[in-house]
Amino acid sequence: MIKLAACLLFALHLSAGDEWRDQGVIYLDHSPRAVMHPVPIRAVKLGAGFWQERRRVNVERSIPTMFELLEAHGIVDNFRRLSGRKDAPRKGPLYTDSDLYKWMEAVAFVLQSGDNPKLRATLDAIIDDIRAAQEPSGYLNTNYVGDKVPLRFTEMYRSHELYCLGHLLQAGIAYYRATGDRKLLDIGIRFVDYLTANFGPEKRPLLTGHPELEMALVELYRTNGNRAYLNLAGYLLSGVETERLHLKPSQVSYMFSGIPFTSRTIFEGHAVRAMYASSGATDYYLETSDPLYHKTLDTLWADLTNRKMYITGGVGSRSDGEAFGDPYELPNSQAYTESCAAIGNMMWNFRMLAASGESRFADVMERALYNGINSGMSLDGTLYCYRNPLASDGEKIRNEWYDTTCCPPNLERILASLPGYFYSTSKDGLYVNFYHDSELNWQGLKVTQKTNYPWSGDVEFTVTPESAREFTMFLRIPAWSHNSNVELNGGKIPGQPGQYLALRRTWKPGDQFTLRLDMTPHLIAANPRISEDAGKAALQRGPLIYCLEQPDQTARIPDLSLINPTTGFANQFRKDLFGGVVVLKHQGAAYDQPLDREPLYETLDQASRRKMNPVSLTFIPYYAWANREPSAMEVWVPLK
Amino acid sequence: MIKLAACLLFALHLSAGDEWRDQGVIYLDHSPRAVMHPVPIRAVKLGAGFWQERRRVNVERSIPTMFELLEAHGIVDNFRRLSGRKDAPRKGPLYTDSDLYKWMEAVAFVLQSGDNPKLRATLDAIIDDIRAAQEPSGYLNTNYVGDKVPLRFTEMYRSHELYCLGHLLQAGIAYYRATGDRKLLDIGIRFVDYLTANFGPEKRPLLTGHPELEMALVELYRTNGNRAYLNLAGYLLSGVETERLHLKPSQVSYMFSGIPFTSRTIFEGHAVRAMYASSGATDYYLETSDPLYHKTLDTLWADLTNRKMYITGGVGSRSDGEAFGDPYELPNSQAYTESCAAIGNMMWNFRMLAASGESRFADVMERALYNGINSGMSLDGTLYCYRNPLASDGEKIRNEWYDTTCCPPNLERILASLPGYFYSTSKDGLYVNFYHDSELNWQGLKVTQKTNYPWSGDVEFTVTPESAREFTMFLRIPAWSHNSNVELNGGKIPGQPGQYLALRRTWKPGDQFTLRLDMTPHLIAANPRISEDAGKAALQRGPLIYCLEQPDQTARIPDLSLINPTTGFANQFRKDLFGGVVVLKHQGAAYDQPLDREPLYETLDQASRRKMNPVSLTFIPYYAWANREPSAMEVWVPLK
Repeated sequence: MIKLAACLLFALHLSAGDEWRDQGVIYLDHSPRAVMHPVPIRAVKLGAGFWQERRRVNVERSIPTMFELLEAHGIVDNFRRLSGRKDAPRKGPLYTDSDLYKWMEAVAFVLQSGDNPKLRATLDAIIDDIRAAQEPSGYLNTNYVGDKVPLRFTEMYRSHELYCLGHLLQAGIAYYRATGDRKLLDIGIRFVDYLTANFGPEKRPLLTGHPELEMALVELYRTNGNRAYLNLAGYLLSGVETERLHLKPSQVSYMFSGIPFTSRTIFEGHAVRAMYASSGATDYYLETSDPLYHKTLDTLWADLTNRKMYITGGVGSRSDGEAFGDPYELPNSQAYTESCAAIGNMMWNFRMLAASGESRFADVMERALYNGINSGMSLDGTLYCYRNPLASDGEKIRNEWYDTTCCPPNLERILASLPGYFYSTSKDGLYVNFYHDSELNWQGLKVTQKTNYPWSGDVEFTVTPESAREFTMFLRIPAWSHNSNVELNGGKIPGQPGQYLALRRTWKPGDQFTLRLDMTPHLIAANPRISEDAGKAALQRGPLIYCLEQPDQTARIPDLSLINPTTGFANQFRKDLFGGVVVLKHQGAAYDQPLDREPLYETLDQASRRKMNPVSLTFIPYYAWANREPSAMEVWVPLK
Repeated sequence: MIKLAACLLFALHLSAGDEWRDQGVIYLDHSPRAVMHPVPIRAVKLGAGFWQERRRVNVERSIPTMFELLEAHGIVDNFRRLSGRKDAPRKGPLYTDSDLYKWMEAVAFVLQSGDNPKLRATLDAIIDDIRAAQEPSGYLNTNYVGDKVPLRFTEMYRSHELYCLGHLLQAGIAYYRATGDRKLLDIGIRFVDYLTANFGPEKRPLLTGHPELEMALVELYRTNGNRAYLNLAGYLLSGVETERLHLKPSQVSYMFSGIPFTSRTIFEGHAVRAMYASSGATDYYLETSDPLYHKTLDTLWADLTNRKMYITGGVGSRSDGEAFGDPYELPNSQAYTESCAAIGNMMWNFRMLAASGESRFADVMERALYNGINSGMSLDGTLYCYRNPLASDGEKIRNEWYDTTCCPPNLERILASLPGYFYSTSKDGLYVNFYHDSELNWQGLKVTQKTNYPWSGDVEFTVTPESAREFTMFLRIPAWSHNSNVELNGGKIPGQPGQYLALRRTWKPGDQFTLRLDMTPHLIAANPRISEDAGKAALQRGPLIYCLEQPDQTARIPDLSLINPTTGFANQFRKDLFGGVVVLKHQGAAYDQPLDREPLYETLDQASRRKMNPVSLTFIPYYAWANREPSAMEVWVPLK
């Protein structure tokens, strides 16, 4: 524990040669406002179970097949043609570079968990291709070349030049943190240095038309300590160039960029842009402690979680503009809820958690991760959702490729980096954010979790510091766990929902305790202002939101209602289904006459005479839907 | 009555000099499939009351102020610049010609009800401007001139060239039917003749990217008997040019054009385009009796009325593409429901009614007219809705001008032509489609209605043929009138909801009877498949849909529910409100704690503990909303 304390209380060892080994998904050990410091990905090994199975599929299937598709669609060749290694026309929309970079970041995260020679060799070859494509000035983008050179930085509201750079930097940082090798990072830095030399208040104006670079720049500053990069992030967030760039109000709404971030009070416009901008702004706040940022981020968080977030953690209600809607505008079938936006929501709340130490942010992370993100990739790891609606008539929702293929590699990098989200340290001790069968091994402290979470709420902990030492174990009690306690030395310590339970004591090697979370399924009501959910209920068990999918029902989904809502649910672990899931059964009723044969409007009197027959409803976890034949699904079920 | 019978049973008097006097909104006296023949606009004079007040405002305020705005925005100058009468750049989007034409048609309809020298003089001057702008070839469009000449007919999916021509023809026909003067009509015919000479299966391909011309061509055929125009409509509806025009599936969905009309089975794409296409197809069917059209129109009507129509008669659920949604996708706040689409719905059902004689089509016309159309113009006649949503947080919805100002003149032409929708004749007698204090005077038959409809359901009829004669009075019994009867000679004849009640007898001059319709207010339930309306009710009294608007309530609208739905409503005629309306009061409840201070999601248990307090709810007719300060409104009210 000496090293742990040292790291947290003093520690400025940027000069050491292997500091990259200590750096996690984000690296906050020297961030003035950080209350919590994430541990590196390599410090946590997940055991068998829920996430590890997805991570295995991710490495064995998703990442390799996605690379084949990136090659097949010419996305890597777009770089090779610039160096003359390939003679082919440029392929795909203008932002395809970022899809490759995001895939590379996913591979780099995989390497942070342990070597994978084949993936590393592939990655090294691509890095070589990218380096060969970079211009001597540092500029690097496969779209703005040839006769498009004059358009560089002239249409930043749509160009994605800085967006691609942001993903390049993040991939470079992840590769550095995996290997200690700066070669990809340096490619990104050369481009950033080109920007700092030519753009800024006294030079040419700059804009992140799709926010993303802000996060990357702050992380770059955390990686190499060069304050110029933090300042550039601050300049981008300052939004002072509205006039010089002739930005229209509709553009600054849509982009969530171009006006001062601290002037924002509501979420609007493109959901992914808004989530990435908020993540970058939180990163900036973590480094600067600027109270205006704090106030803005708090206001925005309240807007999101009180008015604009789906129960799955998905965000972005409208297809039109892939955008936030009005307050309480949360349609189910029509939900846009892009996988990337749910990922952005998790990334943002991870930063808010670090800045506050407050469990409510981890609750949102968990909600998004287990549901709105988790639904984004098929169980076999080769098909992806772009949209993650909460109801469906059965249209095909999963595809192996999208021309705008932002979501698939984004899902891959989340799964690859997942262990890095589990634990954080502080000057007081260790925070446990997530539960899973696993082992933490970090700076002289080992913590093992034995659990079948999320199917079971029991987690057996073993804490093994190098030697006995006083510190606090902070155990996150999720807001959904109404009755939680820790069994320790024969006693029971109750936990408050939505708070970290602090166990402060002198921990000796091999100390054990058991956390018992309350996995009672609950019916959830939406605020009646969400028009589509009025008179309906959703089902939650632990962190998982459930749904009805057609193959499990005896009547057609649109004709089903839930009855006797105070009756409990029957739990059943189905080993044969989706690799093993808990399904839940409850009493329901089905209209005798299918609703699509009934009139569109009739008097309440006439409508109330419709007959219903009792049926049994079978709920499956939402994330597992659309892994059989495309069929109808709904999360919010009418209450009879 | 001799002339009436003659007209209906024989009659082919195209050669007479004043046949234009007999022609109504559409002229079906010689249409083989027409069961009903609308009377001309001039045959019906509305007395004081509901519509006549709107029609007065339309003539005195709406039409004059809209002309000022058309001039102020350069829409008329767009023509004058082509003849050199004005030196100014072209103004507005590419389809502005149609806005002027539609306004001109509205004026022509006004003139069909009686002379108005000032409006006629204005109209004549514009006609002169338009004639001066027409090219010798017949081509006429103010956008495709100068360096845009090469683009003519090369981008018909967006060009609106044929759409503008359609409105020019309709204006020309209406002006002819008002005055007997063919000068405006001839301008349109010159353009059509240019088309028939150069376009068609063996020549260049043609497409109505925005359907409208189909209707106009069939009406032109009805006006001058030239079958070439009917054939051109048939060619446009045949959709045989998909390949030659390289149309994509997304385009033919959006445009509701470009593939065979008879291959359509569902409504999709742009709602106004779909309604206009269906109107044109019905016109074509009325002339050709093609059974494939009949089948298609029936299928589409079922799709609309069973799955895709708002209770207001509005259609078009999505802003994105101004489009139809999926079946049962009928959101309230987000409803697009363009005024033009509701008008299109009424126009289409007017044609379906004529082809069938079935009251269900008049029911839809009435629903749209009194609600989704009627809401489109402010009571003072100077502000217009483009969208007509069924719920609102209080955003400003009415404006005097839109850059795409299709709706305002469309509303003006509907009000100006309204008397033409009231009566139709058949070989058996006279159909009464709508009720209003009024006098019909047509071919020797007078029928007066004394009524305060729609505030009262009692209509006193006096029937005065020139001499006693046997024929049938068909009285429409609206589907909403559950208990209806006619008092005639001391007896009571019951009427069936949703059917015409046939009174066949020998009618003598001065015969009287009273129709009593059931104005009991009813709560209406939507099919539970309409997700947003589940657990809610709307209120209807007579043809009017009601709503809650904030100024009339004692608590905030989002916090209100309706209780005791089986309790009756208190009626109150409020002379002071909106020029005199019946308001309805009912028991309700309001959440003790405003819902926007409650969590977005909580357990059903927790949610069920929310306290409510009793309140009285005051409903106003939906059409009258947004005539005070912008404020919240809702049609579908939660049932507690």
